[in-house]
Amino acid sequence: MQKINLGVIGTGRIGKVHIATLVQSVPRANVLAIADANLASAGEVAKSFGIMNVFKSHSDIINHQEVQAVVICSPTDTHAKFIVEAAKAGKHIFCEKPIDLSLEIIKGALDAVKKAGVKFMVGFNRRFDPNFMKLKQMVADGKVGQPHIIKITSRDPNPPSAEYAASSGGMFLDMTIHDFDMARYMAGSEVTEVYASAAVLVDPAIGKAGDVDTAVIILTFENGAIGVIDNSRKAVYGYDQRVEVFGSKGMVNADNNYPENHRYYSADGVHRSLPLNFFMDRYLEAYANEMKIFCDAVCDNAKIPVSGNDGLMSVAIALAAKKSNLEHRPVKLSEII
Amino acid sequence: MQKINLGVIGTGRIGKVHIATLVQSVPRANVLAIADANLASAGEVAKSFGIMNVFKSHSDIINHQEVQAVVICSPTDTHAKFIVEAAKAGKHIFCEKPIDLSLEIIKGALDAVKKAGVKFMVGFNRRFDPNFMKLKQMVADGKVGQPHIIKITSRDPNPPSAEYAASSGGMFLDMTIHDFDMARYMAGSEVTEVYASAAVLVDPAIGKAGDVDTAVIILTFENGAIGVIDNSRKAVYGYDQRVEVFGSKGMVNADNNYPENHRYYSADGVHRSLPLNFFMDRYLEAYANEMKIFCDAVCDNAKIPVSGNDGLMSVAIALAAKKSNLEHRPVKLSEII
Amino acid sequence: MQKINLGVIGTGRIGKVHIATLVQSVPRANVLAIADANLASAGEVAKSFGIMNVFKSHSDIINHQEVQAVVICSPTDTHAKFIVEAAKAGKHIFCEKPIDLSLEIIKGALDAVKKAGVKFMVGFNRRFDPNFMKLKQMVADGKVGQPHIIKITSRDPNPPSAEYAASSGGMFLDMTIHDFDMARYMAGSEVTEVYASAAVLVDPAIGKAGDVDTAVIILTFENGAIGVIDNSRKAVYGYDQRVEVFGSKGMVNADNNYPENHRYYSADGVHRSLPLNFFMDRYLEAYANEMKIFCDAVCDNAKIPVSGNDGLMSVAIALAAKKSNLEHRPVKLSEII
Amino acid sequence: MQKINLGVIGTGRIGKVHIATLVQSVPRANVLAIADANLASAGEVAKSFGIMNVFKSHSDIINHQEVQAVVICSPTDTHAKFIVEAAKAGKHIFCEKPIDLSLEIIKGALDAVKKAGVKFMVGFNRRFDPNFMKLKQMVADGKVGQPHIIKITSRDPNPPSAEYAASSGGMFLDMTIHDFDMARYMAGSEVTEVYASAAVLVDPAIGKAGDVDTAVIILTFENGAIGVIDNSRKAVYGYDQRVEVFGSKGMVNADNNYPENHRYYSADGVHRSLPLNFFMDRYLEAYANEMKIFCDAVCDNAKIPVSGNDGLMSVAIALAAKKSNLEHRPVKLSEII
Repeated sequence: MQKINLGVIGTGRIGKVHIATLVQSVPRANVLAIADANLASAGEVAKSFGIMNVFKSHSDIINHQEVQAVVICSPTDTHAKFIVEAAKAGKHIFCEKPIDLSLEIIKGALDAVKKAGVKFMVGFNRRFDPNFMKLKQMVADGKVGQPHIIKITSRDPNPPSAEYAASSGGMFLDMTIHDFDMARYMAGSEVTEVYASAAVLVDPAIGKAGDVDTAVIILTFENGAIGVIDNSRKAVYGYDQRVEVFGSKGMVNADNNYPENHRYYSADGVHRSLPLNFFMDRYLEAYANEMKIFCDAVCDNAKIPVSGNDGLMSVAIALAAKKSNLEHRPVKLSEII
Repeated sequence: MQKINLGVIGTGRIGKVHIATLVQSVPRANVLAIADANLASAGEVAKSFGIMNVFKSHSDIINHQEVQAVVICSPTDTHAKFIVEAAKAGKHIFCEKPIDLSLEIIKGALDAVKKAGVKFMVGFNRRFDPNFMKLKQMVADGKVGQPHIIKITSRDPNPPSAEYAASSGGMFLDMTIHDFDMARYMAGSEVTEVYASAAVLVDPAIGKAGDVDTAVIILTFENGAIGVIDNSRKAVYGYDQRVEVFGSKGMVNADNNYPENHRYYSADGVHRSLPLNFFMDRYLEAYANEMKIFCDAVCDNAKIPVSGNDGLMSVAIALAAKKSNLEHRPVKLSEII
Repeated sequence: MQKINLGVIGTGRIGKVHIATLVQSVPRANVLAIADANLASAGEVAKSFGIMNVFKSHSDIINHQEVQAVVICSPTDTHAKFIVEAAKAGKHIFCEKPIDLSLEIIKGALDAVKKAGVKFMVGFNRRFDPNFMKLKQMVADGKVGQPHIIKITSRDPNPPSAEYAASSGGMFLDMTIHDFDMARYMAGSEVTEVYASAAVLVDPAIGKAGDVDTAVIILTFENGAIGVIDNSRKAVYGYDQRVEVFGSKGMVNADNNYPENHRYYSADGVHRSLPLNFFMDRYLEAYANEMKIFCDAVCDNAKIPVSGNDGLMSVAIALAAKKSNLEHRPVKLSEII
Repeated sequence: MQKINLGVIGTGRIGKVHIATLVQSVPRANVLAIADANLASAGEVAKSFGIMNVFKSHSDIINHQEVQAVVICSPTDTHAKFIVEAAKAGKHIFCEKPIDLSLEIIKGALDAVKKAGVKFMVGFNRRFDPNFMKLKQMVADGKVGQPHIIKITSRDPNPPSAEYAASSGGMFLDMTIHDFDMARYMAGSEVTEVYASAAVLVDPAIGKAGDVDTAVIILTFENGAIGVIDNSRKAVYGYDQRVEVFGSKGMVNADNNYPENHRYYSADGVHRSLPLNFFMDRYLEAYANEMKIFCDAVCDNAKIPVSGNDGLMSVAIALAAKKSNLEHRPVKLSEII
């Protein structure tokens, strides 16, 4: 079995998830080196996963002779720079979403990737959730016929701090971006227009910071389908992640996942547990599948399932949503991209 | 549309249910007369349902020239006597379960029915519950293949008084008798042996009165299938009525019914309402279907779906269960009947 | 028990439903007379339900001395006229939705009602569906806290003819109007703005007739909540009617209803039946509850739960949705009303 | 973090599961050596998991100086012998179920363990399934009150070969033994009597080999609860593993697990996937939890959650069930043990 030597840049929350997955669950992955500006933190991660090489600078990963592919988990504003460097160094690239908040910068990074001819994948992990993979397969198999309505509910268990909300580019670019990608993925078609209606209902501080915490967004697709997403930054019952595709021949949907499936019947009613609490639990399997698929595709020189264009389009839709909400009108993608 | 003139004997709890159903939901029924030893009670029922003739004695119903069929809802120990009288008077008969607690007396009553050539149906209403009708249809259509295991859960929301428990012939003859009929109905085969393991776990007074309140019963069927019933006199969460048929080609089951289907997601978990509380609610539709089918069958001279033999066999199985529990051994039906 | 003498105007599909309900399930209703321009049809209905007085003209009902309340089930364009006449005659009024397609005409009719001081109720039957009653109760009890997102899925099993689509005022006024009322009911607040995105995906003939068959609509409420409705004229799996209310303290939702609850496990998967097929089945109990509540309120001189204003607002929202879809922009209710 | 050096004896199906789990998911496990009579097979396993030491003989594991605990996955008839040897060598022991088919031999092995003072755990992995752990916790927390009925459905997707059926000691000792342990675990009480009613309905060859393939078993517990287990060797819809505990204060149950939770609504009905197909999938997490708990308990010198007595009792109940079925009568445990 051919293996691939990987270097991971960034050992924060998502970096650790990827490192753990790569070490424990991806047979073809060999995590050769990791880097983080916070060297001490990287050192601890390296120790607990038995990784030999630890660096402070991303350059040591990108220029490492034995590293064949880099996994970019550093802050968003470094993504494009690292992509360009890695592409020039001839390394294959896995990059966390979003690639960047600027379409120009994203385009520049993708140009570098194209010129270098390296493989590039964006971390839309939810595409690899077993529930949503099944939905996509059924849609692709024609089970729902022509898609008419794509419906996504996506609610977080707790709002981020107002500082994070502001610095992340806002809810559409930070949170809904996953749903935009999911909607495109399920529709099998491009978004042509966006209308977003948002509000601050959860935390006034988020509003003061210029962001929103509750939204309903309508997407118009080229193939005529209508998409609808509802978001909240705070669902007291936990992480709510549901998708439904309705079409001319039927409907398919996926519910939340639960830690176990007990039902308790007392004199007060019938009770079950809350859904899995947040993305680390809910999408654990999705993260593992994602990394397996990336490593397999690189090793086997196969097609990458989430392209640079997917990364670009999701940001474009998010920017359209932001503009729509600000200007209180439907916004065409062609105004944005 | 041909109608049938009915006389109802007994206006207690179940009598009232049948009268309401016949008046409101059975287009071919004409309730001509009702009778109850408690004439005042019968009078009130007659008034609220607009019934013209009210009698104290069952004979006035049975001998009423215009009455074509009688519905016997009087106490169990009068069933056989009324059946014989009605048969002799040439009336069709619907009789509540059980026909009697003595197999000899039942056989005598059924002989009278046979001689008179009148139609006779026993009130195993659960056969006409929409869930169980669907299960039966699927079993009859061969969807589960050869039945291997028939599994019935049947639990009451509250135990009867110890006095009732004793006078009714005990749990097997009063409560489980419905499950015995359901098991035979689903298996499409006769029971050959019974093993009952019972206990007094709910109310010691029931034990003192010589009865049990908790039981698991195994049935052996002629066709090789095994039946298993679990009973409790007290499920704090309400009336629990579930059936499952497992066979060579699949399994089909039916859950409880609920007053509505809301789900409430709070920070404490996911909640739904309790099942419909007791037989009046859960089997309301079954009672209506049962009466429609009886009236239709009489009017159209069609086959009655619950025969005298069904009434006989359910009592025989109950007596075998009682004997099995007392003698702590499997009891063959051939020892009983 | 005080009863009320009712006259029903219109014996088409919905008229028959109300007559059957009133006769069979509403103890306080006495259907004294019915009328239909098609006298033969009215005669048949009268015969099968044992109703004494049959008329060709609505005036014979409205002016009938013993009739205390009228139930208006005639075509929409007659509603306002009949309301005015009935109000002048001092009769209480139950009117099917929509009152009219013109806000001016509705206001005129409601003025007449106000002047006459009679009771008036609009037929938004879904408010009386047991599932949605439970949801409303939980929202009213504060179980979900402050409502943030009201989500309604409402899909019909089959599209109407293109002729009907055109003459009924279009999908928003004919079908979504129920959902607009439900959204207001659940939100407990008035709609201030509407954005509708609609398409013709089911039947091109509907498009040619100037109507749409698929839509997603966003509602903005005074209390800050966002409503979202998705509609289709054709769900191949049947009538799809779901409601979800998400708020600061939790979420409550209601699923579809099913004819029975069997589950079939074969080698191919796990299967259940389709939801109840259309509104006659799904909302049967709602129709009965609605009529009981109307008759009770009239007899007891109690508050009517669905007011003339409710009838007015739902039409206003529908008109705003129509305008929004045509003009491709969010439309404020204040532009309409 | 303290680790434990483990040696695994037997690299067949279950051996491989444990090795994979220990290597990939148990941080405190260090698989130092593995052994199998089939050395080539063991070699392959060692290679794919990077294990250094491979032996043909179990003695090389047991006597390996650095091995602190052995995991016995060899054929059942070697378990007791290896337990005795390992205990004498002072090694902690994890042994697959059943310990042996003879109560005398089991007692002998457990005596050796006791004398040596080593830790000993039997592989009843289902106790560590997240669903059943939740049920046990709720029962232990008093949520169901006093347990009255323990109900277990346990059906395999496919029957074993007739040869295997015979050599494994029969269905009760091979398959139902897991359910006997689960029933004891949930009841929190000892079984005093067993009645088993079994049949050959799946494969006549199993009957010819002296075994059964379908059964319903009633257990009587010291605390008064009644247990009921239904088994089949062939459920065409896959692996069916459900548990329900009913008591004085409520009921708690656990359903099957599914690979994903999609629902597909077509014109033919509503469909979902089949449950996880067999124990490798369904109990994957249980196997991992089991090994974590064993390694933790050894490292921390904590109490082992599945004792030698648990291993003994499950075999005793299985022998009683076998005798009950043969002699067609309830059998007391005191006749067996």
